[in-house]
Order: sequence, then C-alpha cells, then structure tokens
Amino acid sequence: MALSNDWFTEICTESGSAFSLKVKEKLHQEETPFQRIEIYETNHFGTLMVIDGFIMLSDFDNFFYHEMMSHPALFTHPNPEQVVIIGGGDCGTLREVLKHKEVKRAIQVDIDERVTRLSEQFFPELCEANSDPRAELLFADGIQWVKDAAPGSIDIIIVDSTDPVGPAKGLFSAAFYRDCFRALGDDGIVVHQSESPLIHQELIRDMRNAMHSAGFTQQLTINFPQPVYPSGWWSATLAGKKEILTTFREQASRNKPFVTRYYNHDIHLAAMALPEFWRERD
Amino acid sequence: MALSNDWFTEICTESGSAFSLKVKEKLHQEETPFQRIEIYETNHFGTLMVIDGFIMLSDFDNFFYHEMMSHPALFTHPNPEQVVIIGGGDCGTLREVLKHKEVKRAIQVDIDERVTRLSEQFFPELCEANSDPRAELLFADGIQWVKDAAPGSIDIIIVDSTDPVGPAKGLFSAAFYRDCFRALGDDGIVVHQSESPLIHQELIRDMRNAMHSAGFTQQLTINFPQPVYPSGWWSATLAGKKEILTTFREQASRNKPFVTRYYNHDIHLAAMALPEFWRERD
Repeated sequence: MALSNDWFTEICTESGSAFSLKVKEKLHQEETPFQRIEIYETNHFGTLMVIDGFIMLSDFDNFFYHEMMSHPALFTHPNPEQVVIIGGGDCGTLREVLKHKEVKRAIQVDIDERVTRLSEQFFPELCEANSDPRAELLFADGIQWVKDAAPGSIDIIIVDSTDPVGPAKGLFSAAFYRDCFRALGDDGIVVHQSESPLIHQELIRDMRNAMHSAGFTQQLTINFPQPVYPSGWWSATLAGKKEILTTFREQASRNKPFVTRYYNHDIHLAAMALPEFWRERD
Repeated sequence: MALSNDWFTEICTESGSAFSLKVKEKLHQEETPFQRIEIYETNHFGTLMVIDGFIMLSDFDNFFYHEMMSHPALFTHPNPEQVVIIGGGDCGTLREVLKHKEVKRAIQVDIDERVTRLSEQFFPELCEANSDPRAELLFADGIQWVKDAAPGSIDIIIVDSTDPVGPAKGLFSAAFYRDCFRALGDDGIVVHQSESPLIHQELIRDMRNAMHSAGFTQQLTINFPQPVYPSGWWSATLAGKKEILTTFREQASRNKPFVTRYYNHDIHLAAMALPEFWRERD
C-alpha cells in the first residue's frame, strides 16, 4: 500500500525499513548554515522536528530518549555538579539534567542556534528549564569547546548528537573522547547516544572501542524504546574513568524527588540487561 | 518523501504511524477461508509473512516475540509439562516451548492450517521442532478447544494470536479466560500477546481486568522490543492462578541448557520493569 502525500517518511537505508507519521501540516522549514530543519504537526505524535530528513523528536515520545540520556549518568556519578551537553539543541536533555538539585551548572553547546530557537517556539515544554540560572546555552562547535575546556573541570559530558554523518561525525571519534577524558574529573562520565542495538551493532562496538582507547576504564551500553527512531529500539553508551557504571546511586534513584515518564530505578536496572545476541558477540 | 512500489507498508491507524519494509518480491499470496496471507522476500529483514495486511513476522526479528511469549511463562511455572498454544500457526512459539525438557506435550491449536503449511515452506527454521514427538499440531477453533479441554489438565496456555479483530477477537474476552482458568492446573498460567505498551494501554488494561474477573489472582505485563510491530515495542500479559509470576525459577533460567537470541535471566527481570507512565495510571 502506498502512503498518500500527508505522511512524513524517513527511510533507514541500512535496514531497508521506513517509518512514517501522518501529518496535518508542515509548520516551518528553513536552511540554516548547518542543516535543513523542518517542523510538522502530526496527527497523533504532536509536533515533529526533522533535520536533514531524519526525525529528531516528537512531542509524543521524546521522553524516552531525553530521560535515558540523562538520568542513568546523573544517578551514577557520585556528585554531578558540572554537566555539559554537546548538541541537544532542542533543550530536552537540559531540562532533565536540571531536575537534579546537585547540578550547579549545565552548559549546552549546540553548533546551530536555530535548533534551539525553533524548539523554544515549537517545543516550549522542552525549554522549560532554559531560564534556570544554572543553565548556560552556548552556540558553538562542541568538539572545539571540549578541547578548550579546563582539565578535570566537568563531571558529566552528554553527547546528544545527530547520527554520525555531517557535523556530528567528529563526535564519534577517539580524538573527541580523549578530549572528553581530559576535561572530565576523576569520577567523570561521558554518555553518547549510540543508535539501534539491533541495526547499529558495528557502530556501538566502534564507539566502545574508541572510548576505551581514549582512556576510559569502563563502558556500558543501555537500551530503551524509541518509537520514532529506526527499529524502535535505541541505546546510549556510557564510559567512565572509574568502574562505577553498574553500581549507580540506587537509593537516590528510588527516591528521586522529580517527575519522569519512563525512567525510574527499575527501568535503570532493566536498561542494563544485555540481550543474548549481544553477549555472543562481545 | 513517498516510497516507491517496492516497499510493503503497514499503517497503524490508532497511532497515525506506518512501518515499511523494502521488498525484493512477493513470493506468495492466497485467500484462505479465514484470512489473506502474503509472503514477501525483503531486502534486509529476510522473509516476511503478512496476514490481512498486518505484518506477522520476519526472519530478522521474530526471535524477540517468540522467545518472550514462551520462556518467561515456562521459567515461571514450577513444572511445565502440558503446554497449549492457541494460534501460533507459524510454529515459532512451539519451537521455543519445546526447548524446555520438562515439557511432555505441546499442542498447537491454530484455526488456519495454511499458516502452518506456508511457514513450513517459507520459514523452515521456525518449524524445526514440528516433528518432535512431544508436538501435536491441531487445526481447529482454539476457543472451542479450550472450552472442551479437561479441567485442570494444562499447565500453560500461550495465546499467540493476531490483533483483536476478526477470528482472534473472542480470545481477548473474559469468557475465554474463564475457560482457560478451568482448563489449567493449580499452578496454571495463561500468557497472551498484549500489543504495544505505548499505543495500546487501554487494551492491556482491559485484558488484565478480564483475566482478573476470570479468576486469576495475579497479572503481569512484560515488555520487549519488536521492530516490525507498531511503535517497535511490544508486550505480553501473564495471568496466574497463584501469585507466582514475579518469582520465576531464576536458577533454571540462569542455567538454561538451550540457545536463545534475546531471552536470558537478566532480560526476564528487565522485561518486568514498569515504566513510570504505567505506574501513574495503575
């Protein structure tokens, strides 16, 4: 059955699959110096942001991704005061990070200011924490920013990037992770979105190897549902300077004083479970 | 972007989303007395079976569903000797069930023999256990079969059905679960596929209520990835005559003497984790 014109479709070439959402109208489209951004109003997934033809997020289901990119790392670091988000221009990860009272400063470094301005306009819920005095929004090259950061000055670096093509490519390299390692304190953790555990196993393995060769002693890949991304199943990979990734602050997680929609203590544990097909290959 | 003709697309009306697979060719199509069955060769997901326009299974990812429909229930019942599968004509669940040495007899009751014959032809891997002397393949109405079963004669009933439309509708009713309850022994468990935890929350709640009103003392909904089904995230709901569902045979699961691709002890535990948005609503 062919879809009529009132659908937005993203093709995932490497898996020969496609995901489509029925749309009411295209609300906005622009070419920035970095990428093409489109905003749609869908029938059931709320507002949708698309960059260079790839779905970035929808109102309906972004909570999976934003919560899992932030809370597992923040409940693992013993005292996450200084957090940096590389990418993440939609501000959804920033909002989750700032739910943690321990955080003294959260710096978001996205190369494209237009992503943030459009998110403020079309995803106001995700930008709720932008005016928090602990938040700092920078529009700059994240790779260079991490290179220039004072050694040992950051507790957690969250790499909330697009896929490893275009401007995000350098974020998936050992050179970048080495700069992260240097910028992080002794208990430092970097966490990077690492695509589909089913379709992108090669990428995840390469990322873990790059993190290891950058000096991190432990890697941990967590997985979670994400309906609008290819295969509907997504992952984030954490790397720690110390071996602290599987022993998170369980009591704090159990008693979290803020609201989430997916994340909780049991989900944190569940996200660490390795499917059998992963074990075979490791 | 519109998809060209060499894609198979399934629309999920209730979520305004669609999932498509690139196909090389249609291998087979027929109308049985019950439904329309199509078989495709896809580019990346192997062979694909479609019934009445809905994707049933692909070579690539059916292991999630078949393993999670069987192993959690079989590692929960203290001694699963008599297992009945209602539906499941592709024989993938039967194969998983028969991996358990304790099983003395596994009866598969599908209303449409053609599903099984086509599975033997196009999905031979799933039919590997069909010649196991413990397997019995019946082609009959599963609702009537359970009604006629001797009271207390079955340990586990697995309802491996299509969506609650057409011939499968009666399988989602309290009347059917009452017949299951009667046919099950004291430690009896019924497990039924219960659609997407994100999109079909109403259906899951109705199913749990129907199971409860049929006499089952405990219900447990487990979740797992399933890329070819709407939202890419799926569930099964177990109901127990006794409250044994959360304390499964962990040691046996840890030492399972057979190969799986998704299921293992950690995944069993992980599948029981309730997302925060489910807790709010319960």
